[in-house]
Amino acid sequence: MLELALYPEKFQSKEFLCNALKLLKQDVGSHSPSINLIQQELGCHVKLDGCFLSNPYATDLFLSYFENEILKENLLGNLFSYYPSQNRTLAKLVSKNLQIEPEKIFIGNGAIEIIQAIIHRFCGESILVTLPTFSPYYEYAEKKMKVVFFMLKKENNFEFDIPEYVKLVFDSQVDSIVLVTPNNPTGNYLTKTQVEYILQACKHLKCIVLDESFIHFAYEDEELNLVSNQSLLDKYPNLVIVKSLSKDFGLAGIRAGYALMHPQRVDDLLADGYLWNSNQFVEYFLTLLSCDKFMREYENVRKQFIHEVIAFHRQLQTIHRVKVYPTMSNFALIELLHNSAEQVVLELLMEYGIYLRNCNDKLGLDGAFIRVAARKQLENQLMINALRKTVTDNI
Amino acid sequence: MLELALYPEKFQSKEFLCNALKLLKQDVGSHSPSINLIQQELGCHVKLDGCFLSNPYATDLFLSYFENEILKENLLGNLFSYYPSQNRTLAKLVSKNLQIEPEKIFIGNGAIEIIQAIIHRFCGESILVTLPTFSPYYEYAEKKMKVVFFMLKKENNFEFDIPEYVKLVFDSQVDSIVLVTPNNPTGNYLTKTQVEYILQACKHLKCIVLDESFIHFAYEDEELNLVSNQSLLDKYPNLVIVKSLSKDFGLAGIRAGYALMHPQRVDDLLADGYLWNSNQFVEYFLTLLSCDKFMREYENVRKQFIHEVIAFHRQLQTIHRVKVYPTMSNFALIELLHNSAEQVVLELLMEYGIYLRNCNDKLGLDGAFIRVAARKQLENQLMINALRKTVTDNI
Repeated sequence: MLELALYPEKFQSKEFLCNALKLLKQDVGSHSPSINLIQQELGCHVKLDGCFLSNPYATDLFLSYFENEILKENLLGNLFSYYPSQNRTLAKLVSKNLQIEPEKIFIGNGAIEIIQAIIHRFCGESILVTLPTFSPYYEYAEKKMKVVFFMLKKENNFEFDIPEYVKLVFDSQVDSIVLVTPNNPTGNYLTKTQVEYILQACKHLKCIVLDESFIHFAYEDEELNLVSNQSLLDKYPNLVIVKSLSKDFGLAGIRAGYALMHPQRVDDLLADGYLWNSNQFVEYFLTLLSCDKFMREYENVRKQFIHEVIAFHRQLQTIHRVKVYPTMSNFALIELLHNSAEQVVLELLMEYGIYLRNCNDKLGLDGAFIRVAARKQLENQLMINALRKTVTDNI
Repeated sequence: MLELALYPEKFQSKEFLCNALKLLKQDVGSHSPSINLIQQELGCHVKLDGCFLSNPYATDLFLSYFENEILKENLLGNLFSYYPSQNRTLAKLVSKNLQIEPEKIFIGNGAIEIIQAIIHRFCGESILVTLPTFSPYYEYAEKKMKVVFFMLKKENNFEFDIPEYVKLVFDSQVDSIVLVTPNNPTGNYLTKTQVEYILQACKHLKCIVLDESFIHFAYEDEELNLVSNQSLLDKYPNLVIVKSLSKDFGLAGIRAGYALMHPQRVDDLLADGYLWNSNQFVEYFLTLLSCDKFMREYENVRKQFIHEVIAFHRQLQTIHRVKVYPTMSNFALIELLHNSAEQVVLELLMEYGIYLRNCNDKLGLDGAFIRVAARKQLENQLMINALRKTVTDNI
């Protein structure tokens, strides 16, 4: 999909683009504008979306199945016209993949719907959220809710200080906590041992939200085997595991995600809503999750991508004038030591058609930060070269 | 898409199918099982889905655009992999189509998500729901909510008795009401004059939910011009208009819908949720809504379909041993005067591969009722012939 023509189609002045980007950003709150929107409003062609957190090889794998099983079989019309199955029917498809009872699975219209549902229904009156992190965890807290923040410290490489965290849980007397591992945008990771230590200390809480949306990019052994904390569900009934399927499978456009939780909580959610909250494209994708052949092929592209991510992060570290923070995900948080984030993002967009994520809207980040997502090898190389040149030329 | 081989692929005993259908039905509550599920679990091929409430010509129209603009342009990968735009961005696309300010538009993941949001957030402590109607309007009421029912009377052809209704609004002192026009499954319709009369009488209520999901099949003049009550929004700030896009455009698989309401209510909904509750396939479809050429072609297939629906309903009325109730939608409610609904639905499925909706789970219906949706002309003729034969042979 990558094109090598490196200039925006309509070349426009830096001031125009800078202002247009700011206006766009105002409209979309604490998230990045979509690529569609950037291209439309700025009149430029994004050649390389380095803001986009996904495994591009998994997208290709999915598309090859879709081509063979849907397009060639003339089934596309059915996907558009028929109603999708209900939540509990789709849960059975995920159940086979995870080897976990369907009664514990809630299907969401992307992880974002699940986060909204959980924060509003299960988290009580106060919640402890780590900063910086994915903003809906505090933005979706209703006005009546108290949000307490635990700060990850830059001087500590944004690593998680567990004793300090547990102390704050008790001192603040919150009802609920949110752990995101690997965390976005820092990339810091909690091992299974660390997670269980926190769960054990927080058994008294109403709800522990553990977001594993990026866990397919993490590993705890040299074979890069899949990690997950789902085995802890039975022991900790206050645990809710949130999982986006947009990142690992590279399918953000269809909105797929699930959560694992105590069956009573699934019953509560389905008692007055969430009946047909998925769509036929997600339903087709979930059937692939229970297909052994697809999952074997997915495992291959998952590991291939992690290897490339590791190489990419090593190369990023060779760039002068930036600090690359340690990460266990498919992206890296980068601090610009001599440039402004706004300027670097704009230069990369104008000169190379590369879009990176300016993190100036992320609560809890003090300094000039950008987040760079790994894409395919050639694209990673383009990002390295362009970033190296941009931070050097624009001091 | 219709095949003329009329027997299920695996012929199985009537008892088996009858029990399998009952079990399926138990699993899905007060809705029909999906066609996928019926085919999988019953091992039969549904040739003709007469339960499915949509305009099949609109599906074809959409598919021709999708083929030309997405498939041929190699853009399918982008739809799967890119994030969709946020709610407010998509509202602008609907805004152009409706000629209404985007601030009054809330995009839903199908009308069902909107119904859930409105019932939980805007309807206060009690709600008046007409019976029979679309069941989520009372099923989604939370435990703490009081639901009052207004019965449409069979002996009155399920027509709406407005003075009696308004009296019940005052006597019951409800906070909110729900009007569905045309109503599902009865097909009865409230004219714009009638709607405004009720709105005027109910100005004191917290919320008036007006569901116009089937309004593209209704008409008030001989040219079959589109009707809608959206012009009443400014005058009645308690009004919320709900609109599914699954029926009129024949796209139930992607989950598209919107609601029109006071801008403050849109702000309230978006303040703590519903950020990316749509998907890329819906986003593409919404761009078509603001395309004049597409909308002109849609108007043609909408009117064509209404003409065929009228002819279909006239033919249904020639069948003996059933009563066809008056309808202003693309389906008709039929009372079987000498047969059981279960038996007729099963016979049609086994003998003809035709699936019709048994209405025995619909609150407020006393008798043997099925709901028959109009499809394309040839399919309508098959349904007429099969239904005529089935109600005659199985007395």
